Amino acid sequence: DDPLVIAGRTYRSRLLVGTGKYKDLAETKAAIEASGAEIVTVAIRRTNIGQHADEPNLLDVISPEKYTILPNTAGCYTVADAVRTCQLARELLGGHRLVKLEVLGDEKTLYPDVVATLEAARILVDDGFEVMVYTNDDPVVAKKLEDVGCIAVMPLAAPIGSGLGIRNPYNIRTIVENASVPILVDAGVGTASDAAVAMELGCDGVLMNTAIAEAKNPVLMAEAMKLGVEAGRKAYLAGRMPRRRYASASSPLDGTFF
Amino acid sequence: DDPLVIAGRTYRSRLLVGTGKYKDLAETKAAIEASGAEIVTVAIRRTNIGQHADEPNLLDVISPEKYTILPNTAGCYTVADAVRTCQLARELLGGHRLVKLEVLGDEKTLYPDVVATLEAARILVDDGFEVMVYTNDDPVVAKKLEDVGCIAVMPLAAPIGSGLGIRNPYNIRTIVENASVPILVDAGVGTASDAAVAMELGCDGVLMNTAIAEAKNPVLMAEAMKLGVEAGRKAYLAGRMPRRRYASASSPLDGTFF
Amino acid sequence: DDPLVIAGRTYRSRLLVGTGKYKDLAETKAAIEASGAEIVTVAIRRTNIGQHADEPNLLDVISPEKYTILPNTAGCYTVADAVRTCQLARELLGGHRLVKLEVLGDEKTLYPDVVATLEAARILVDDGFEVMVYTNDDPVVAKKLEDVGCIAVMPLAAPIGSGLGIRNPYNIRTIVENASVPILVDAGVGTASDAAVAMELGCDGVLMNTAIAEAKNPVLMAEAMKLGVEAGRKAYLAGRMPRRRYASASSPLDGTFF
Amino acid sequence: DDPLVIAGRTYRSRLLVGTGKYKDLAETKAAIEASGAEIVTVAIRRTNIGQHADEPNLLDVISPEKYTILPNTAGCYTVADAVRTCQLARELLGGHRLVKLEVLGDEKTLYPDVVATLEAARILVDDGFEVMVYTNDDPVVAKKLEDVGCIAVMPLAAPIGSGLGIRNPYNIRTIVENASVPILVDAGVGTASDAAVAMELGCDGVLMNTAIAEAKNPVLMAEAMKLGVEAGRKAYLAGRMPRRRYASASSPLDGTFF
Repeated sequence: DDPLVIAGRTYRSRLLVGTGKYKDLAETKAAIEASGAEIVTVAIRRTNIGQHADEPNLLDVISPEKYTILPNTAGCYTVADAVRTCQLARELLGGHRLVKLEVLGDEKTLYPDVVATLEAARILVDDGFEVMVYTNDDPVVAKKLEDVGCIAVMPLAAPIGSGLGIRNPYNIRTIVENASVPILVDAGVGTASDAAVAMELGCDGVLMNTAIAEAKNPVLMAEAMKLGVEAGRKAYLAGRMPRRRYASASSPLDGTFF
Repeated sequence: DDPLVIAGRTYRSRLLVGTGKYKDLAETKAAIEASGAEIVTVAIRRTNIGQHADEPNLLDVISPEKYTILPNTAGCYTVADAVRTCQLARELLGGHRLVKLEVLGDEKTLYPDVVATLEAARILVDDGFEVMVYTNDDPVVAKKLEDVGCIAVMPLAAPIGSGLGIRNPYNIRTIVENASVPILVDAGVGTASDAAVAMELGCDGVLMNTAIAEAKNPVLMAEAMKLGVEAGRKAYLAGRMPRRRYASASSPLDGTFF
Repeated sequence: DDPLVIAGRTYRSRLLVGTGKYKDLAETKAAIEASGAEIVTVAIRRTNIGQHADEPNLLDVISPEKYTILPNTAGCYTVADAVRTCQLARELLGGHRLVKLEVLGDEKTLYPDVVATLEAARILVDDGFEVMVYTNDDPVVAKKLEDVGCIAVMPLAAPIGSGLGIRNPYNIRTIVENASVPILVDAGVGTASDAAVAMELGCDGVLMNTAIAEAKNPVLMAEAMKLGVEAGRKAYLAGRMPRRRYASASSPLDGTFF
Repeated sequence: DDPLVIAGRTYRSRLLVGTGKYKDLAETKAAIEASGAEIVTVAIRRTNIGQHADEPNLLDVISPEKYTILPNTAGCYTVADAVRTCQLARELLGGHRLVKLEVLGDEKTLYPDVVATLEAARILVDDGFEVMVYTNDDPVVAKKLEDVGCIAVMPLAAPIGSGLGIRNPYNIRTIVENASVPILVDAGVGTASDAAVAMELGCDGVLMNTAIAEAKNPVLMAEAMKLGVEAGRKAYLAGRMPRRRYASASSPLDGTFF
C-alpha cells in the first residue's frame, strides 16, 4: 500500500480527526492518540491555538511537533471570512500553508456554499496556501475544485454532525474515479463501518470529529475508527468478491457497488 | 471486552473462517493465518480430514493443536445426511463434539431448511453434540434453535456465496436482543464493512469463507476482515453517536439502527 | 393483464385490506370502498361477524355479497387455536372454505411460527380449507407451504404494523420466481411506494391494514394504495429500463433489482 | 389537493415528460398521451420544432394547443450555449418565455455545472424568461437558484438516464422544506415506485423521459408513471403511518423518512 501524501508529506494513517465537542482537553488528547491520526484539524474560530494568551491552548496537548495541524474555517459563511481565517491561522502557526477550507451555505444543514467555496479556494491558492477543501458530493464541483488547484478534495458523506454515513456512494465513487488529487470523505461518518465503506469506495482518507467525540466512549470509538479505516483500505486493495444474488448465479451483479 | 466463549472455550478472535474455494492448501493456510481466526470450519463432505488416507489432509495445514476445528454439514439436504455427517466428523476427530449444522433447503439459494434444521438439531443435541447452527434471519426460528439446545445460532446475512452483506439488519438486531447464546452471522458477508456492520449490530462473531477466498488477494482480504470485525466490535462497545438529519436537529433519529 | 385468480374466483383488484384499527365502522367502510379492494380480511378473534348477536356486526358494513370475506387467524399462537378459529369462521360464514392462516411465534415482532404454520396448513388443507398463508420471507419455507397445498403464499415485507416497507426485496423476488401459486405481500407496507415496489417485484397482490387505518387520512391513503398497487403492477408488466450508473455506461447494472 | 401552478398556469397532472429516445413520433405521441402529462419538455438542440422546415416536426404530434411546451437546453455545456438555445426556442415558439435550463458539467454523468447554471439562470431571468432549472440535490444550490428568480427548481434524483431512483431522499426532503417555489424531481427515476417516492417526499412534480421511453412497453409504463405520481401525491397528503421496528414498539422511528 502506498502511503497517503498530502502537500508533499507522507502519512501512514488515513484517518484525520477534529478537536471539537470533547469533554475536556484530556479527553481530546486521549481520543486523538487512540485514533492514530497524524493530521488534526482545528477550527480556528472556536479553538485557542494562541489567539488568547491566558487560556488553555490546544497546541499544548496536540503538539505541532507530533501532529500536522490542519487549521479549518468552520463557522465561516463568506469568502472574506474564510480567507481571513486562513490568514490568521498562517500567522498564528508561523507561516503554515496547509489549511482546510469550508465556506458554509446553510446554518441548518451546514452544507457548503460551493460557489463561495470555489471563489475562496482560488484566492487562497493564489495566496500560496495548500488548500484541502470541504465540498458536497457533486462530481462536477469536486473536479472544479481540483482544477483551481486544491491539493485534496473532501466531499461530505452526509451533513456535518449527522452520523448518517455515506448517503450517496455512487457520487463518492465517481469523484474518486475522476480525481488526480487525494479524495477524503469529510463529515457524516457515524460509526466504524461507515469509515470502512468510505475507504472501500477508494477514498484516500476520512476526516471525522462528532462520531468520535459524541460516542459514549470516545477513546474506544477512536480505536474502532482507526481499525475501520484500515479494514476498508485493505479491503479496497484486496479487491472484493463480486456481488451475486446467490452463489450459483451465472452472472455477478457487475457494476453494482452498493 | 469480554472474550467470545463457545462451548466453554474462550477465544480472542470473533472471526471464524471456512476452508473452501482456495487455490491450494498453501493459500488456505496463509489466508487463515492472516485472518487471525481461532475457529476454522471444515465441510466434511468436501474436505479430506482423514477420510482419504493418501490425499492431502487439511489438518496437516490447519492443525487441530492450533485451531478449533469446526466440522460442518455443508451440502447436506436431509436430516439423516446432516446427522450422519456430524457423526463421521466426531469419529474422524477422535470424539470431537462441536459441530456446525447446516441442512440446506434449496440448491439455488442455499437457504436452510429450517424445519429439517430444527429436527436435526434436536437429534444432535440429544446425541451429545455441541451444535452451532446455520439458519435464516427469522427471530422466531432463531429462538427455537436456542430452545432446543444449540450453543450458538448463526443467521445468514444474505445467501451463502452472495457477498450481499446484511440484507435485513432489523432481523439480525432482533435476534441479538432476544438471545442468551452467542449469535454469529454466517454467510453473505462480502467485504470488511459488512463484517463491521454485523458486529455493530451486537453480534458475537462472524463466519465467512467466499468473501476471503474469492477476493483478488485473499490474504490481504483476510487481514481486512480481521480488522473489520475488531472495528465493528469496538464501535458496538463504544456506543455510537445518534443519527440525526443534521447536527442542529433537535431530536435524533431514535431507534433508527440502519 | 391477466386478472388475479384466488380459489377459482377472479378479481380485478390486487389490493387486499384488513378491517382493524379504524375509528369506527363508518370509517372502515369508507376506507375499504376507497381502496377498491374486493377481498377483505377479518380477524375472527377480534371482530364480530355474528359471534355476538347483539353487537355491531362488520358484515352489515362489509357485505359478503359485495366482498370476498377472508377470515384470518390473527392472534393465534398455536396450531390448535388457528385450526379452531378457521373452523369457527367456516361455521359463522355458512361453509366458507377460504381462510388466511397466521400462526404467530412472537408477541413482540408478530413474526410467524413457520413450523406451526406448516403443521396447521397441512391440517386445514386436509380438512378442505382453501388456505392463504402468512409467512416470513424465506424462499424455502414459502415453497414448503405451496407444496402442502396452500393456494396462495403471503410473505411479510416487514413486521406486522411496522410500516417499514420491503426489507428484503431479494427474498421476495426469489419467492415469486419459484412459485406456482399467487404470492401476495402481507404485512409491513407503510405507504404507496411500498405497495408499488411489491408489485414491481412481480407479486400478485398486496394485503395491508395498518398503513391505511393509521394514516392521518385513511380514506385518502386507501386511494393512494389502490393507485400504488396499480402503478406497480403496470410497471412490472411494462418492463422497466435497466439501471445504470449513468446514461453513458456501457453496461447496465444487470441483475440488480434494488 | 391544490393543483400544480407553474408560471401562473394551473395543471392537474404532476408528471412532466420528455420526448427523446422513442422509436418514432407515433410512439412518442401514444406514450405522452398515456402519461396524462400536460407539460412536455423538448430538447431544442435535438428536436425539430420548426428549425428544419422539411423534416418531421414534433409540434405536429405534440400540439402546443394541447400541451405546454417546455423547451430545454439539454446538451448545452456553457452559459452562452444555454442562453442562446433559450433565445432560439423563444423565437421558434413565438415569444414563449417558459424554459427548462440545464447547463451540463460532465459528459459522463450529465451532472449539472451548478456555477454555470446559476449564471445562466441570472441572465435568463433578467431577459424575461420564466426559468425552471435542473440542478444537483444540494439544498444550498437549490436555494440560490430560487433566490435568483427561478420559478421552479428541479433537483436530480440520480444521473440522467440512470434509472437509479432517489439516491438521497434526505437532500430532496430538505430542498422541499426550504422552498417557496415548486420542486420537481428531474432525472434518475427508473420505475413507478421511484416516482411515488419523489411525491411522498413532498415534491410538487416529477419529470422523466428515459424511464418511459426505454421501458419494454413505453405506453404501459407511461400509464404506470401517471398512477405512481398520483399514488405518491395522495400518500403524501394522506399522512403516512409512523415507521416502527414492530407494532408493539413504544416509540415510532420519528424523523426517519427513508
